[in-house]
Amino acid sequence: MARRGARPPVGALAGLPVAVDAMGGDKAPGEIVAGARAAADAGLPVVLVGPPDQVGETAGLELVACTEVIAMDEDAGQAVRRKKDSSLVRAAELVRDGAASAMVSAGNTGATMASALLRMGRLPGVTRPCIATPLPRLGRTPAVLVDAGANAECTPAMLVQFAQMASAYVAARFGIAEPSVGLLSIGEEPNKGTPLVKEAHQLLVAAGVRFEGNVEGRDLLPSPVDVVVTDGFTGNVALKALEGSLRFFLETILGILATDETTRAAGDALMPHLLPVAAELDPDNTGGAMLLGTDGVCVISHGSSSAAAVTSAVRVAHDLAVGDLVGRLASAVARG
Amino acid sequence: MARRGARPPVGALAGLPVAVDAMGGDKAPGEIVAGARAAADAGLPVVLVGPPDQVGETAGLELVACTEVIAMDEDAGQAVRRKKDSSLVRAAELVRDGAASAMVSAGNTGATMASALLRMGRLPGVTRPCIATPLPRLGRTPAVLVDAGANAECTPAMLVQFAQMASAYVAARFGIAEPSVGLLSIGEEPNKGTPLVKEAHQLLVAAGVRFEGNVEGRDLLPSPVDVVVTDGFTGNVALKALEGSLRFFLETILGILATDETTRAAGDALMPHLLPVAAELDPDNTGGAMLLGTDGVCVISHGSSSAAAVTSAVRVAHDLAVGDLVGRLASAVARG
Repeated sequence: MARRGARPPVGALAGLPVAVDAMGGDKAPGEIVAGARAAADAGLPVVLVGPPDQVGETAGLELVACTEVIAMDEDAGQAVRRKKDSSLVRAAELVRDGAASAMVSAGNTGATMASALLRMGRLPGVTRPCIATPLPRLGRTPAVLVDAGANAECTPAMLVQFAQMASAYVAARFGIAEPSVGLLSIGEEPNKGTPLVKEAHQLLVAAGVRFEGNVEGRDLLPSPVDVVVTDGFTGNVALKALEGSLRFFLETILGILATDETTRAAGDALMPHLLPVAAELDPDNTGGAMLLGTDGVCVISHGSSSAAAVTSAVRVAHDLAVGDLVGRLASAVARG
Repeated sequence: MARRGARPPVGALAGLPVAVDAMGGDKAPGEIVAGARAAADAGLPVVLVGPPDQVGETAGLELVACTEVIAMDEDAGQAVRRKKDSSLVRAAELVRDGAASAMVSAGNTGATMASALLRMGRLPGVTRPCIATPLPRLGRTPAVLVDAGANAECTPAMLVQFAQMASAYVAARFGIAEPSVGLLSIGEEPNKGTPLVKEAHQLLVAAGVRFEGNVEGRDLLPSPVDVVVTDGFTGNVALKALEGSLRFFLETILGILATDETTRAAGDALMPHLLPVAAELDPDNTGGAMLLGTDGVCVISHGSSSAAAVTSAVRVAHDLAVGDLVGRLASAVARG
């Protein structure tokens, strides 16, 4: 497949570091540096990117110095245009220039996406990149929801590409040979939903993916299909609704357990069973969201990422870059 | 305000029965009849509607006989057109003809809506009726989400009417003088979201409601605003995502409590605290969803409604009909 000039051959990616935005996320730089250090200790090549005076202690890791940082709440488009020497933009350039195999950031999602898109470029044939976010399924590999918020407005053809790319991603990441795909709608019947959804349903039948029809909001947790496709507006609302309800239930349960001596004792008895479930639902342990459709691997870790989440994101980014995710995505779109 | 010829004056509604679709819902007719009976025992006037041979025992309640039933999974538009002597259509006609104050069904949501719309008609000035569904807030009156699924496609002006009607409904039902309104989007900033949302945001500022800006999916449980406005596609997906996660968490917790002797004992200790929370989250106890914008009160109870849910729905329907909800909705739309 066609690749932009500067990108190294896939075989060379294993030797390149993953570029980690040291200043991205609510817990940056402390947890980010610690997570990158742990990744390096596990044998994963990694390089930090950030302003030396703000990053501070690098735990012995190489730091690619820059002068600017894009804040969590900055307007993404504007920030990426103006802050050309920011850690996010520089990390994307390292991938573009063949100096890094992939990039990881727990920072401003919109700015991460814009940096990757503007510096790495789109894959040939891809209309718009999209974000694939894990949906936990207890005791199994997670499903993914795509688009989780990259594109508020979508066309039916874009949803088809999202399905093709997410299928290739799930196959590469979780080893599922032919991932099943569902279209998020308000009823199982093909004639339910908006014109966008009805047309996408028709197109998905012939899109070269294992399309199993519509799924509904109640099917997101746990998902019966490996890939749930939707536009970025609906996807973002649905994901945040799930996150909000998860937080609500955890706070409610913890509040009950803290009531008195009796409930605290009950809580002690239940903890060995509750903790593994909480761990499986924790975004820290899923490796983050994946930007699909740019000419380079970009992992968007949760804004509240701990060191463990960063280590996990670096591992996923490295493995998928080496496994030629980018080539697989381009093939999936070209074939579809 | 203008009223269709056959409708009785508001003052006469208190003496009229609430028409209950005896055949609507997964537990019909048993739980429906039992719930209507309990409502009558509590002094609420009520009449059942259904085919005598299918309803069977009416527990001494009056039954308006008809010959047909619309099933839960039938195509709504087609069913309402063809089954002119169905319990749903007949219940709506009782309201239209001034023989009932309001209607209640736990049956096919689309068919309930279509029956009410086609038989009662729209309120003057209302473009499209919408569904307002309660969002639980522990220890407080629920918020409502509107539109919960009546209209997959919406215009900005429709969202404004939904906000106006839902505000009047929340004021009438929960006694909140000036309910706060939020617009569901993918960011707090007015420029985030689809063109529909961005334009609705501008219109809501001058719509005569207490508009407090955008809210996100994570704000649905518990909602910081009294009314959350969205299109019927997004609303339906979000509500079902919340329902699905509620079911998922309950099943997960119950599974953990059933593990062994120790967890069962812990469960016994926690039950007095868990049950009140579960009760507040149970759709059975919220009085059901409300159809807003038809010339008559129509309560759409949950498909799995128990007798208690039906009793609650009858009470809400009666009180709101007597309190002239329909007049308040028409005024809210005319004023806005």
